[in-house]
Amino acid sequence: MTESRAARTPLSPTARSTLTRYRDRAATDRGALDAVLDAGLICHLGVLLHGAPVVLPTTYGRDGDTLYLHGSTGAGNLRAALAEPVSVAVTHLDGIVYARSAMHFSMNYRSAVVHGRAVELTDPEQRLHGLRTVVEHAAPGSWEYVRPPTKKELAATMVLALDLTEASVKTRAGGPGDDPDDLASDVWAGVLPVRQVFENPVPSVDLASGVETPDHVRDRISPASTPVQVRT
Amino acid sequence: MTESRAARTPLSPTARSTLTRYRDRAATDRGALDAVLDAGLICHLGVLLHGAPVVLPTTYGRDGDTLYLHGSTGAGNLRAALAEPVSVAVTHLDGIVYARSAMHFSMNYRSAVVHGRAVELTDPEQRLHGLRTVVEHAAPGSWEYVRPPTKKELAATMVLALDLTEASVKTRAGGPGDDPDDLASDVWAGVLPVRQVFENPVPSVDLASGVETPDHVRDRISPASTPVQVRT
Repeated sequence: MTESRAARTPLSPTARSTLTRYRDRAATDRGALDAVLDAGLICHLGVLLHGAPVVLPTTYGRDGDTLYLHGSTGAGNLRAALAEPVSVAVTHLDGIVYARSAMHFSMNYRSAVVHGRAVELTDPEQRLHGLRTVVEHAAPGSWEYVRPPTKKELAATMVLALDLTEASVKTRAGGPGDDPDDLASDVWAGVLPVRQVFENPVPSVDLASGVETPDHVRDRISPASTPVQVRT
Repeated sequence: MTESRAARTPLSPTARSTLTRYRDRAATDRGALDAVLDAGLICHLGVLLHGAPVVLPTTYGRDGDTLYLHGSTGAGNLRAALAEPVSVAVTHLDGIVYARSAMHFSMNYRSAVVHGRAVELTDPEQRLHGLRTVVEHAAPGSWEYVRPPTKKELAATMVLALDLTEASVKTRAGGPGDDPDDLASDVWAGVLPVRQVFENPVPSVDLASGVETPDHVRDRISPASTPVQVRT
């Protein structure tokens, strides 16, 4: 996504994301980073494995300046994440941008990329806080509602923390950036909006009888969108 | 996403994704790979930059055994993709899995990860085919409908090809994998389905008067989903 209207908003003074101008934007930028991370459900974690990058989808959570990841202690990829620098991307696709010429097609999106070194948490309270953050990120309201982890479950789980100091946010919004010479064209141009929705919850087949869907799940269902086939 | 019910389906005989059993599944697996790739809109490209992995969202397209990427010739990250091995992940999030205990929360998803070395296409016909594949992937029916690339535009565009021989597909579906001891719990468990929908197209503000939304755009609008707040 390298189109001209993309706004790169670096958040940190490193080689990977240098903030040389607009220093007064830092606070805003940090808010933008949090907004992109908090609105996501999965991230793509990039690790080095035998000298090659490997990209893996996984869940995460954020609290303050820390991004938390978790997984089985047996997961080789998470172990690999500890030995070398990592990169974590969270991307929201907002629309497909139709242009009047092939090379101006694009996507509208919000994306955050974090760089750094992940550390494995060993302090029991920090580990529990990290796990709570990940679970509450995926399923708000669930941590207090369900059975907490046992000692055995905790022992089998790695919790990783990644500092958010080195990160950048990139977004694109709006219509196509067509060439002036193409604007009079009779080719349709515009945006096909893309949205992620939550549908009706499906109860587990072995749910105990009489257990109702709790509010913290029901309240996530997306409002009915009623797309109508329109001619414009 | 390292939960127990995930089914890892390697497609190739490399160290990163070894197919040691179920060799007769290879054809099916290849179909699964194509299905995940073809249903996606963006991928996450992992490249090595100054020795560290960097994960970037970008568009792509597939034709046969080749994944195509494109970008500006000035894009340092795409240049980096040529020097070292890369990894490309395409992930569809299908649902949030609510369990009766915190450590069994999960996601339903379909994910493909491709490993390999990207090559820059130099042959004009191959380059044009790659670009057409990427544009048609994002916006089917558009390549023939819009103005084709000029020589100048083509000169400013890199087209990369990545072979699909080394790839794996991983999926999770269904309800939570709770512990037997938790099944009698009065905690709700189940899946909150997640879906990506296309909404009504938004015409460009500078669209020439009288230009109607073409069928190849209108036909993508998702059918009206009518989520109802249900108690189960």
